Amino acid sequence: MRLIGVGMGPGDPELVTVKAVRVLQEAELVVVPVMDAGEQGRAEATVRAHITHDRVQRLVFALDDRGGATPQRTAAWDNAADVVTDALRTKASVAFATIGDPNIYSTFTYLADAVRERLPEVVVESVPGITAMQDLAARSGTVLCEGAESLALLPLTAGIDAFEEALSHFDSVVAYKGGRHMTAVRDVLARHGRLGTAVFGAALGLPDEQVGPLPAEAAPYLSTVIAPARRTSRGGKL
Amino acid sequence: MRLIGVGMGPGDPELVTVKAVRVLQEAELVVVPVMDAGEQGRAEATVRAHITHDRVQRLVFALDDRGGATPQRTAAWDNAADVVTDALRTKASVAFATIGDPNIYSTFTYLADAVRERLPEVVVESVPGITAMQDLAARSGTVLCEGAESLALLPLTAGIDAFEEALSHFDSVVAYKGGRHMTAVRDVLARHGRLGTAVFGAALGLPDEQVGPLPAEAAPYLSTVIAPARRTSRGGKL
Repeated sequence: MRLIGVGMGPGDPELVTVKAVRVLQEAELVVVPVMDAGEQGRAEATVRAHITHDRVQRLVFALDDRGGATPQRTAAWDNAADVVTDALRTKASVAFATIGDPNIYSTFTYLADAVRERLPEVVVESVPGITAMQDLAARSGTVLCEGAESLALLPLTAGIDAFEEALSHFDSVVAYKGGRHMTAVRDVLARHGRLGTAVFGAALGLPDEQVGPLPAEAAPYLSTVIAPARRTSRGGKL
Repeated sequence: MRLIGVGMGPGDPELVTVKAVRVLQEAELVVVPVMDAGEQGRAEATVRAHITHDRVQRLVFALDDRGGATPQRTAAWDNAADVVTDALRTKASVAFATIGDPNIYSTFTYLADAVRERLPEVVVESVPGITAMQDLAARSGTVLCEGAESLALLPLTAGIDAFEEALSHFDSVVAYKGGRHMTAVRDVLARHGRLGTAVFGAALGLPDEQVGPLPAEAAPYLSTVIAPARRTSRGGKL
């Protein structure tokens, strides 16, 4: 009984790996997280763009960590873990399709933990996926890091001070989940003289994609900000 | 005239994206970096696992930044930029296949800069690729970051002090290119009480793959160390 977290990339169905496609195709069951049972999520859209079988099951739960562990959220999570555990008792392999990479801020981490509690003998595996940071870098023509530069990645749920500290200690800084904090993020970047080179992205690879300078108003929760390293002149490095 | 940096992932030919395969297949020319003209590099092996044409050209230059800009290295780099620039004058698209992700510590950054100097009207694009950090996390069952944790990524060429500072300020820390500094890396991790949970990887997805605890002796230059965040108890988070 293998539980395999499969990275689906940020949203563009082409940004999944060849391995992810094979694992999804071979899995006895593919579980996809959705906010609402009647709605196809990003992960499912990418799954269905590649597989030829119909062994796909939707699991309803909140995909982000806004709002903390309310009784309703906890119940949905418990139910999700029960459903996956039950499936694993009769199936050799269950794939869980997760946006981005299953080991980077993924709900797969929590699901795997909960399933391990229920079924200690489960074998947990994962298949990496392209992260939003990488997709935004490509779509905006931004170099994330080069040479001896360092890169910091953190969610704005860690606080605006953590973001500012990262800007002080690291060359390039990437912040996730900053949508509602956009004004504070802009202020900090401006204070560090880095607002002009910073790049914002949301809904990457989807019809409502946003890529460009940081918006002045609040933005979607699942957004990405890249503050690239200060670099003197580009070119002439060869 | 488009120059497209295409991420090939860390070495396992299955860890390229569906988009990368399409772009490589469609490109009028695919350039692959090699250390020696008679030798197939990692990038070329992954390219050839997927494409059906033979529009592949090897470009000889050093793939890492050891040793600095010696006259020999600079000449090889200049030649590489000249070759790619000449190709772009007659071809609509030239793809440069690069290990990992083209915007994360990639030679593509330097190549694109040098080509822009020679051909300012070139359009530079990139296709993201799976990084060694992500592949090592998957192969070793390591969660890179969850919840509000921060992640720092840096090369050991930035110095062992920068690595130690990252351990002090960030939750999870990933160090690349630490092969020759393995003793110092072990010492720092031990001093921070984090040697026991740290994971080492080299040659991921290749026959001589190494995944496990940090080796006591010097290791390959292109290696990855993950020091995961301190986490109290796993499980029970749902």
